Amino acid sequence: MINYEEYFADRVKPMKGSAIREMFKRMADPEIISLAGGNPASELFPADELSKIAGKILMTSPTVALQYGTTDGYPKMKDCAIARAKEAGAYNEGDGVLIMTGANQGIDLTAKAIINKGDKIIVESPSFIGSLNAFRTYECELVGVDVEADGMDISKLEEALKANPDAKLLYTIPTFQNPTGTTMSLKKRKKVLELASEYDLLIMEDNPYGDLRFAGADLPTLKSLDTEGRVVYCGSFSKILSPGMRLGYVIGPPKLLEKVEMLKQVNDVHTPMLTQMMCVQFMKKYDINKYIAKNRKLYKEKCDTMISAMEEYFPKGKVEWTVPEGGIFLWCTCPTITDVSVVVNKALEKKVAIVPGSNFAIDQSLPSNKFRLNFSSASKSDITEAIKRLGEVLTEIL
Amino acid sequence: MINYEEYFADRVKPMKGSAIREMFKRMADPEIISLAGGNPASELFPADELSKIAGKILMTSPTVALQYGTTDGYPKMKDCAIARAKEAGAYNEGDGVLIMTGANQGIDLTAKAIINKGDKIIVESPSFIGSLNAFRTYECELVGVDVEADGMDISKLEEALKANPDAKLLYTIPTFQNPTGTTMSLKKRKKVLELASEYDLLIMEDNPYGDLRFAGADLPTLKSLDTEGRVVYCGSFSKILSPGMRLGYVIGPPKLLEKVEMLKQVNDVHTPMLTQMMCVQFMKKYDINKYIAKNRKLYKEKCDTMISAMEEYFPKGKVEWTVPEGGIFLWCTCPTITDVSVVVNKALEKKVAIVPGSNFAIDQSLPSNKFRLNFSSASKSDITEAIKRLGEVLTEIL
Repeated sequence: MINYEEYFADRVKPMKGSAIREMFKRMADPEIISLAGGNPASELFPADELSKIAGKILMTSPTVALQYGTTDGYPKMKDCAIARAKEAGAYNEGDGVLIMTGANQGIDLTAKAIINKGDKIIVESPSFIGSLNAFRTYECELVGVDVEADGMDISKLEEALKANPDAKLLYTIPTFQNPTGTTMSLKKRKKVLELASEYDLLIMEDNPYGDLRFAGADLPTLKSLDTEGRVVYCGSFSKILSPGMRLGYVIGPPKLLEKVEMLKQVNDVHTPMLTQMMCVQFMKKYDINKYIAKNRKLYKEKCDTMISAMEEYFPKGKVEWTVPEGGIFLWCTCPTITDVSVVVNKALEKKVAIVPGSNFAIDQSLPSNKFRLNFSSASKSDITEAIKRLGEVLTEIL
Repeated sequence: MINYEEYFADRVKPMKGSAIREMFKRMADPEIISLAGGNPASELFPADELSKIAGKILMTSPTVALQYGTTDGYPKMKDCAIARAKEAGAYNEGDGVLIMTGANQGIDLTAKAIINKGDKIIVESPSFIGSLNAFRTYECELVGVDVEADGMDISKLEEALKANPDAKLLYTIPTFQNPTGTTMSLKKRKKVLELASEYDLLIMEDNPYGDLRFAGADLPTLKSLDTEGRVVYCGSFSKILSPGMRLGYVIGPPKLLEKVEMLKQVNDVHTPMLTQMMCVQFMKKYDINKYIAKNRKLYKEKCDTMISAMEEYFPKGKVEWTVPEGGIFLWCTCPTITDVSVVVNKALEKKVAIVPGSNFAIDQSLPSNKFRLNFSSASKSDITEAIKRLGEVLTEIL
């Protein structure tokens, strides 16, 4: 038999499977409480509504639902995506829209349309591994800029741009960032746009969690503040309807989207029709904002539950954490140690899954004294129990 | 506003939208009879069955259907894909399987795992534009080998390999090829594998139409004849269940599939769960081979209808065509002219859509005296009417 490794493209040779994925395999054990993934709360999924909707679509419009569709998206689904983007203030007159099979596809294919080998891409450090790994497949150089409690460290961003004046793209999750849970302040949003203009950067604004605010006041998207057409906006239905349906979208200048559409045409041709039509019917028949409000309320309760438990069970003064105003994650730092792996492994022995900070780093080989916690997925009682066990591990190690 | 063209990656700069797509836009006119697309017959879609199945899945397993799934595929769907691959003789002991959002995604991401910039890829000439365009995005050099009535011209393949001994990959649709409708003989299949071994080539075998044989005897897949693990097999549910559901799969060596899986993880993360679960339930509750047999019978009737009409209405001795033993396409040549564009445009004036051969060429800028006809999509009466009108155009021009 031939050795396939000899045939691999350079771009995939350094790729490693996500450690989160590896952890998921170990998590087949049903006793494990997972604070590791990014799953929304499944207890709120509108299953009855979607069941009726799916059945009816296939009875009344079988040909549309089962035949090939267009690459840019089912027209009514494009309207739904635009409606959500308008709600977020992320749709400008003249923008185009493409429906994607999840926002990650939008990020991947937009990157494919922009990034040449060797290009420098500014990213938050830490950041979402799915996007970082997508960028890595185009053999670019990731330049990390630290994230503070109010978003990117602007002086470090300026340093990074001075050192890399030819950087092409800046990728940011400004609101309820993955993994830190932090939100970029308005002042920083404006400064990022100014710097993008000064250094001629494109901006990819990834906003899967923006609808999930449960404290503080909404902030304008970078897209809405952009007067030069520098921002491409990636939106998602994963956190406000269902991730298993894989529905996302990209909003941006038609000239760019034309290229992204061609890349989607040779990728999955189009997003499955039934799931697009289900989303359209759900938004037509029900008030999706009411459904989102239910999620927000639950996530606030779960986040409060997690933080209360952390205050009770984590060793005093040994762990710092972010206090998110929305989204599904918070971020913990253990300043007295350099490598959190032992905590992660001992927690798993106690049947609690968390993700070490190294996963979200630009250089994943470096140790990290941070870890991410997800509060949307587990039940409140499981959250308390998991934090209690994690507190025992931290008390033992720190 | 900034000029986005300055930011495009090299790989997308030369990309043009598919002429088929452009034609589809003009085809919004409902009076047009389309022989242009690759749509399966929608009149046979098992809509009632799928309606009940979808409704029930969302009632009984809402969390699985609506929550995140695994990148490699819903486990029972992987079993279904393996079952289909075994039916085609395309699954060997030790092979891995990945569920893809349509087979085109499997082709795209497998290419992404293999092709470096400048690599030489052997392809049939003409070939499926979706695959050719996917390969082009990895900035490879396509080396075309003419297709004869019994598949690739082997002496031209040998010439191509002598001229390009470092070619890395050979892409073929051996059965009911798109666009020619031809099938590679057993002798040629064996010879292709021998040459692949001699020149150390990987083979990507694309087999979306293999189940749709309506004449002649089945031939073994290249995958089943492969003793060295050189063949990656791409299968599809688009032509045997529904293209709108976007379900395909890749079968091959686990080491390669591990990389393809990582590329899928950063692309659409996973294929939507509901459509995977619907396919599983359909195959569990119903005999998919019976459903395929109904399609085969209808496609034979439609193909016969088309060929009878061509014999009646096409100008005698001026047009040659392939006679397929299955699939959904046949391929016409007009030996007395060099460029078929005028035929295509005049046909469109008479509200008949066909695709010129240049679309499927390695060098799309060259004129072609060929065109592709699809016989699966239009009704039998529309096929006869469209061929009659096309005959009028051909009689006028040839």
